[in-house]
Amino acid sequence: MSERALGGARRAVRDPADLDAKLEALASLCVTVGVNLQRGQELVVSAPIEAQPLVRHVAATAYRAGARLVTCLYEDPHLVRAHLDHGDDQALDCAAAWMSEAVARALEAGAGRLFIYGPYPDLLTGADPQRIARMHAALAASMKAEAAMTAGLRVNWCAIPFVTESWARMVRPGVPPDAAVALLWDDLFDVLRIGEADPIERWQAHLRTLAARRDALEARRIDALHFYDGQTDIRIGLARGHRWIGGASIAANGVQAVCNMPAEEIFTCPHRERAEGRLVASRPLALGGVRVEGLVLTFRGGRIIDTHATRGKEMLDALLASDEGARRLGEVGLVPESSRVAAKRVLYYNTLLDENAASHVAFGQSYAACLSDDLAPEATGANRSSLHVDCMLGSATMNVDAILPGGEVEPLMRRGEFTL
Amino acid sequence: MSERALGGARRAVRDPADLDAKLEALASLCVTVGVNLQRGQELVVSAPIEAQPLVRHVAATAYRAGARLVTCLYEDPHLVRAHLDHGDDQALDCAAAWMSEAVARALEAGAGRLFIYGPYPDLLTGADPQRIARMHAALAASMKAEAAMTAGLRVNWCAIPFVTESWARMVRPGVPPDAAVALLWDDLFDVLRIGEADPIERWQAHLRTLAARRDALEARRIDALHFYDGQTDIRIGLARGHRWIGGASIAANGVQAVCNMPAEEIFTCPHRERAEGRLVASRPLALGGVRVEGLVLTFRGGRIIDTHATRGKEMLDALLASDEGARRLGEVGLVPESSRVAAKRVLYYNTLLDENAASHVAFGQSYAACLSDDLAPEATGANRSSLHVDCMLGSATMNVDAILPGGEVEPLMRRGEFTL
Repeated sequence: MSERALGGARRAVRDPADLDAKLEALASLCVTVGVNLQRGQELVVSAPIEAQPLVRHVAATAYRAGARLVTCLYEDPHLVRAHLDHGDDQALDCAAAWMSEAVARALEAGAGRLFIYGPYPDLLTGADPQRIARMHAALAASMKAEAAMTAGLRVNWCAIPFVTESWARMVRPGVPPDAAVALLWDDLFDVLRIGEADPIERWQAHLRTLAARRDALEARRIDALHFYDGQTDIRIGLARGHRWIGGASIAANGVQAVCNMPAEEIFTCPHRERAEGRLVASRPLALGGVRVEGLVLTFRGGRIIDTHATRGKEMLDALLASDEGARRLGEVGLVPESSRVAAKRVLYYNTLLDENAASHVAFGQSYAACLSDDLAPEATGANRSSLHVDCMLGSATMNVDAILPGGEVEPLMRRGEFTL
Repeated sequence: MSERALGGARRAVRDPADLDAKLEALASLCVTVGVNLQRGQELVVSAPIEAQPLVRHVAATAYRAGARLVTCLYEDPHLVRAHLDHGDDQALDCAAAWMSEAVARALEAGAGRLFIYGPYPDLLTGADPQRIARMHAALAASMKAEAAMTAGLRVNWCAIPFVTESWARMVRPGVPPDAAVALLWDDLFDVLRIGEADPIERWQAHLRTLAARRDALEARRIDALHFYDGQTDIRIGLARGHRWIGGASIAANGVQAVCNMPAEEIFTCPHRERAEGRLVASRPLALGGVRVEGLVLTFRGGRIIDTHATRGKEMLDALLASDEGARRLGEVGLVPESSRVAAKRVLYYNTLLDENAASHVAFGQSYAACLSDDLAPEATGANRSSLHVDCMLGSATMNVDAILPGGEVEPLMRRGEFTL
């Protein structure tokens, strides 16, 4: 692997000017196709400090596209660690709700939103899982106002990945850090269609494919999905009034956005009480820097009644104990094995990529955008929680059937590929 | 100068471990003496991204002192420049009021505030002064809510300087950038009493000296100040109910803070209609990266009726045209020639330092904290403006007299030193 990979790195982003040109193309893609920023709109960006070179291109692109104002909330991972290491007992339950509420007000007043997501998987290494879980709960509670705006697709928003050195070292543990960063950028630019001729037109064609697939699923009014591959065997009932989402969506403000880039999945909302069976995770989970491996879950009545893992079980159990909804499903997503991300055969420890590499479920909070407006939320059976953690189950041997309202069974995927 | 100075740089902060230890001491000083953060208080920090190594120490120090939460709003100068270069006409008048209002709410709810001020004097080089002035006006308007909390000393807050490479290059134009940064840190650590034995106790002794001087000025109920040195000859009437401030102050929340570090000045509020005469600036002004040199101002009835400058007059005139109050005085401060900052004989192009190097006035907004609560603000004669720009007039030849309520004249300073 290292021979091919290092060759790729030399070929591409080892050259600073080439990296900068590709970051500029990425900025253009996420502003014009992802957020689809409208003339006169404000743009609120979140990014780790390491992403400053990308943020500069985002600002220039956005202002040229007629942005009224670009504001970036830079995130410093060291402040999170200082909070965890030195904060007293009272401090652990405290987060900046005033900041999240301010962003929510900016969105209500018309701003678009861009999340540049650069993970720090080793940030919390060695910290007490109970303290991490308390900080996580405080943070999630403080962000409710803003999360309602984005998860409910009330404004046009987009989340894209950014390569941090911490993340690259985790993905490529045997490779020198500089090379690991270059290799991960190569993968990202490839799955994001950056560096090819006319990436914007390639994205539009890809979005048309996803839209056709989504419309076919939507038309069937599926009652439940059945996943089975010899190890996993689980039936997941869907919420009443569920909607399938994937690729481009139209936000409540009328603007079309691609909320996650890359975008390979089509997903919807399960019923919180209707998952039955056994789920064998096809890839590890990354939880606040802790890896959970060899994960097997048993569901009864929609609830996880048993967890087994060869590594990281303590951390997972602590998170699943956050609230009642943490043990139930909030999302189910379908991804073919032929997706650009799956084709890499790399575990990225990053939901934005890994959820586009394999079919998956998520424990915890559901997305309001996956539900019809015609029903009251409590009538749909959609789950609620402060948590949202993705868990991959798709593989090259996975079959998925749709169970239709009349009980008929229709194949959706065979050996990891759509049969629709 | 370079021989002495480079020797100093080799002696001190050229060693990364030494710099880091001094940044840690600076963090401790500004959290415990500057902001004087109380157990259970939140701390809201603003800092340029370059100041990340200092911010980490601030967070650790603050959490150890019982901070409930430390939040840093990182400032990216490149986004300001992108706004100026690429923003359309509508964008120029737009600033993030939602952010400033959120900070104001955090302060109202009990947070302390720390400003880490790292200037970028070359940031706006070559930009249109009219566009700069419009952005400045929009920014000042958007920050009203928060500025009222700090200028009115309603909470404990502190501003400290931080060495950016841009600033160091301006202060030491003939020196390689790394050496310029090291030299400027040497100066800062010296005037901040960092790197000496027990800097906290040295600060407490210095604050007692400033308090005695402030009390002596306060007791006289001075009607006007007369500055004269053969070139400058100006009488500045003070506002009704003015208060002298300097060193430590007690904020409305009951917490003592040192709002500016270093702290050498004692200052108060002039009457907006009572400045008469000629002011010859003793040092250049730095206005948004533009230097104003050879500045001579004529005052009648408190108003600047004539400006003369050998450089930068266009920029100054544009700012003075911001609003009616921009042409009138909002502050007058007294600083002896023996201050640690004056002793450096260096022009820093940074108000936090230069206003502690020489007696000065400021055009524009007054400080509510310099006024008695017993009078309605409009009854005091205090000035109001979106602008606040300091202008140094003190020198080793400057004399200052106090004109007392009965018309008696009492010397306050002779040849730049207090005679009190």
